[in-house]
Amino acid sequence: MTRKELVTQIRAKSSFLCVGLDPDLSKIPAHLHQYEDPIYEFNRQVIAATQAHCVAYKPNLAFYEALGPSGWITLEKTIAEIPSTHFIIADAKRGDIGNTSRLYAKTFFETYAFDAVTVAPYMGRDSIGPFLEFEDKWVILLALTSNPGSFDYQHLQTENQQKIYEVVLKTSRPWGNPDNLMFVVGATQAEALTNIRQIAPDHFLLVPGVGAQGGSLREVWQYGAIDDIGLLVNSSRSIIYAGGNTPDFAEQVTLAASRLHSEMTELMQGHEY
Amino acid sequence: MTRKELVTQIRAKSSFLCVGLDPDLSKIPAHLHQYEDPIYEFNRQVIAATQAHCVAYKPNLAFYEALGPSGWITLEKTIAEIPSTHFIIADAKRGDIGNTSRLYAKTFFETYAFDAVTVAPYMGRDSIGPFLEFEDKWVILLALTSNPGSFDYQHLQTENQQKIYEVVLKTSRPWGNPDNLMFVVGATQAEALTNIRQIAPDHFLLVPGVGAQGGSLREVWQYGAIDDIGLLVNSSRSIIYAGGNTPDFAEQVTLAASRLHSEMTELMQGHEY
Repeated sequence: MTRKELVTQIRAKSSFLCVGLDPDLSKIPAHLHQYEDPIYEFNRQVIAATQAHCVAYKPNLAFYEALGPSGWITLEKTIAEIPSTHFIIADAKRGDIGNTSRLYAKTFFETYAFDAVTVAPYMGRDSIGPFLEFEDKWVILLALTSNPGSFDYQHLQTENQQKIYEVVLKTSRPWGNPDNLMFVVGATQAEALTNIRQIAPDHFLLVPGVGAQGGSLREVWQYGAIDDIGLLVNSSRSIIYAGGNTPDFAEQVTLAASRLHSEMTELMQGHEY
Repeated sequence: MTRKELVTQIRAKSSFLCVGLDPDLSKIPAHLHQYEDPIYEFNRQVIAATQAHCVAYKPNLAFYEALGPSGWITLEKTIAEIPSTHFIIADAKRGDIGNTSRLYAKTFFETYAFDAVTVAPYMGRDSIGPFLEFEDKWVILLALTSNPGSFDYQHLQTENQQKIYEVVLKTSRPWGNPDNLMFVVGATQAEALTNIRQIAPDHFLLVPGVGAQGGSLREVWQYGAIDDIGLLVNSSRSIIYAGGNTPDFAEQVTLAASRLHSEMTELMQGHEY
């Protein structure tokens, strides 16, 4: 999907919501266990319940790998349920030497029909570059994450008085462009967004951590939005498990997604284009 | 596998060789394509041809993921071919927020029977910790890699005049111990080994890049060996593709592995225990 198509979808729907498809067998409603592939059935219902409210889906690969080989079939079937209007992110956090990253890129962009892959920066340019060579496909590079461990290395100060995540943003920008490179920026550190927007004024940011991880949507909008919106805000658990263990869980899932959608619409309507 | 068992294997065999199982359909001998699962057949023959010369195997997950869902079945079958005397490393370079890393850990240590997983450090402690909670299982943390991109971030100097990879080594050490934590250290930067051994005198190092990537085994031994050996040196392409596209490729594979084995034996025999 191109940036133009993504922005069009966001504007048409007045939503920049991404739904994280992180299904855990021990958390999905009990009645789904009667299905041959309970995770697929859960995802199918979640996608049906949320597609009017979001513009993107983000399966985290860990949840599918954990199921063994069949998990990858569940993933394929899940992707096939997602309408072509929606942007699909493989939350894989891959990154390896050049040739190997190229293989990962082929896997996610060709074997599976993802639009984007999250990539870890530690191994540098040749580990990221191969993902940027696919037309209309995207790298979403980890810059500043929302977990406690983000303080261990991402906030380290270099001898030039820059934080590591700032160096990652600055050095990686010229490896791609705003049409094929986004950054992961943790919502729980919204003040950092002003700083990040100075470094990367045109790039889309994928913001996890709104909802279960406690970030504030209003702050993310205030410090992160640009003319092209430039934001995908992800929520996983607070949407997909909103229905708990009930037969009609999908209604609560819709409600949780629509609440975030409404908040986003309100924020977008207060914004001058 | 425990450290004691690993060291016993290394001493018994006078080898610290790890064979990287990175099979590429376009590079394996043509006659193997007649098999139902050519990659498995290739791996099976490579394992049979090398097991007398190595103490560890390291499948890089990218090569299996690239095959689609069936690649994970090939991986399972491959692991089942590896004798229980050998240490098995999932070269996965994973790392995610705590709960998700826990899932990856369960996958590699329980769903599949790996002894160790390579983990990327960028997301910090809670992304690494869950992998350290499994008995007799190992984290192999990326510290200094051997690819060109290693210079982008790993060599950055902090305000305290330490390189990032040094900070990674120092801060992560207390999260585990020499019985469950190793570090990836690229062989092409062997001078750095002296420095690394000052920071981590007791930990095993997984050294890629000997062979196809051009590192020197003698230098690695000179600067990296400790009383408990403390080294696993990996070679992938220069062993598994040594036979080219020939029906009796496995003989050349054995030869390539045995050459490295002999070099290792010679180095170990010159060493006082």
